[in-house]
Amino acid sequence: MKRQKKLYEGKAKILYTTDDPDRLIQYFKDDATAFNAAKRGTIAEKGIMNNAISTLAFQYLESRGVKTHFLEKISDREMVVQRLEMIPLEMVARNIVAGSLAKRMGLDEGENLPRPIVEWYYKRDDLGDPLLNEDHVFAFGLCDETTFTEIRQATFGINDLLREFFLAQDILLVDFKIEFGRNRRGDVLLADEITPDGCRLWDSKTREKLDKDRFRRDLGGVEEAYREVLSRVQNVVLAGTEGED
Amino acid sequence: MKRQKKLYEGKAKILYTTDDPDRLIQYFKDDATAFNAAKRGTIAEKGIMNNAISTLAFQYLESRGVKTHFLEKISDREMVVQRLEMIPLEMVARNIVAGSLAKRMGLDEGENLPRPIVEWYYKRDDLGDPLLNEDHVFAFGLCDETTFTEIRQATFGINDLLREFFLAQDILLVDFKIEFGRNRRGDVLLADEITPDGCRLWDSKTREKLDKDRFRRDLGGVEEAYREVLSRVQNVVLAGTEGED
Repeated sequence: MKRQKKLYEGKAKILYTTDDPDRLIQYFKDDATAFNAAKRGTIAEKGIMNNAISTLAFQYLESRGVKTHFLEKISDREMVVQRLEMIPLEMVARNIVAGSLAKRMGLDEGENLPRPIVEWYYKRDDLGDPLLNEDHVFAFGLCDETTFTEIRQATFGINDLLREFFLAQDILLVDFKIEFGRNRRGDVLLADEITPDGCRLWDSKTREKLDKDRFRRDLGGVEEAYREVLSRVQNVVLAGTEGED
Repeated sequence: MKRQKKLYEGKAKILYTTDDPDRLIQYFKDDATAFNAAKRGTIAEKGIMNNAISTLAFQYLESRGVKTHFLEKISDREMVVQRLEMIPLEMVARNIVAGSLAKRMGLDEGENLPRPIVEWYYKRDDLGDPLLNEDHVFAFGLCDETTFTEIRQATFGINDLLREFFLAQDILLVDFKIEFGRNRRGDVLLADEITPDGCRLWDSKTREKLDKDRFRRDLGGVEEAYREVLSRVQNVVLAGTEGED
């Protein structure tokens, strides 16, 4: 399967058409942005690490019954995915207070939440991806009610699975952002990526940050953090396969 | 019933204890603030007009089956209300796009919504009263689920009633903010006030603003707008009484 024309270029990935109208190639770049692209940079080999981490996470989720757009990893930086019509919401699940939630609620980063929180943001860079509630989603027709209920529940379920996935390698899943879309058959699938760009990941013992906050906050050791996550999740999968009953 | 000690002073009102532990006096000031008190001023006789408008609105809502904290208007600037433990949420209902919703969604002010939107904000001046979703409310214990369902539904119902109340006098209810609290018996009651400070009210023919946006946006004619609203809602009540079957 080979790239044809560039369909969409985002901040960290490019989508290309292929000879199959239902399949796209998702290409992972090294570019990093933060604060709605006010901060820009590059993380060496991020694209390679994120493609590998996403592949492992999607394979894990698929093995647990989650439908995703992932089909196949075909090179260091490329995976084949199903072509979807995207739902314009960024779904966020949170287990520990951090980032915008700390600011919104006036809380210190690091406090465990008594129960996970799911939020959804309108995917509109020009508006700074604002937080919405359900009424906004329905009044502005961003997603129908049935689909919304489905992706909201799916986000809680994926959170439970990914927490386990990361915790098996001593990584706390603090929070993460995911996106969903619908394929031509009408199935709603998990799309986009599962990487340290969109997940806050902390070492469960030291609480060291292993994610894009190292870039956002100029903490240094950015590549090393991504590499550490990749190295650990490769272990999860191996351990998971061996231990499977 | 007379004022005893000052219990709480807000931006536009003061609450005083009385000789009855379950009753407070709510006193309406002329002070006006906007943009989380970054802008401050005075609107002559606002307290008198807001006390009168609130009294009429609460009486109307009570006559339609809504439980409110209102008991009696006892002077130009004072009403007796039930003493409540307040729920720390500002409930907002919207019928027409304006204010923060226009900004959040990137829309022009004045667009009719296909259905009303109810939002809730965490009542925390120091945080700028942030928008929340349900998960935030429950995870941080701001309100229990039963009460939250009750006040969310009540907000939609009060919106329907207040739209009718204002429209009978050619006023469009664009949006409004209300607050709820619980009395010692455990009843959840509509509290606070219903005034042009917390409601966006437009003349239904000219779309002229008859509310605090005249102050916020330096449009002039602020007192006249409040006086116009009072004069019209006095008519609603008279007309409503005569026409009642």
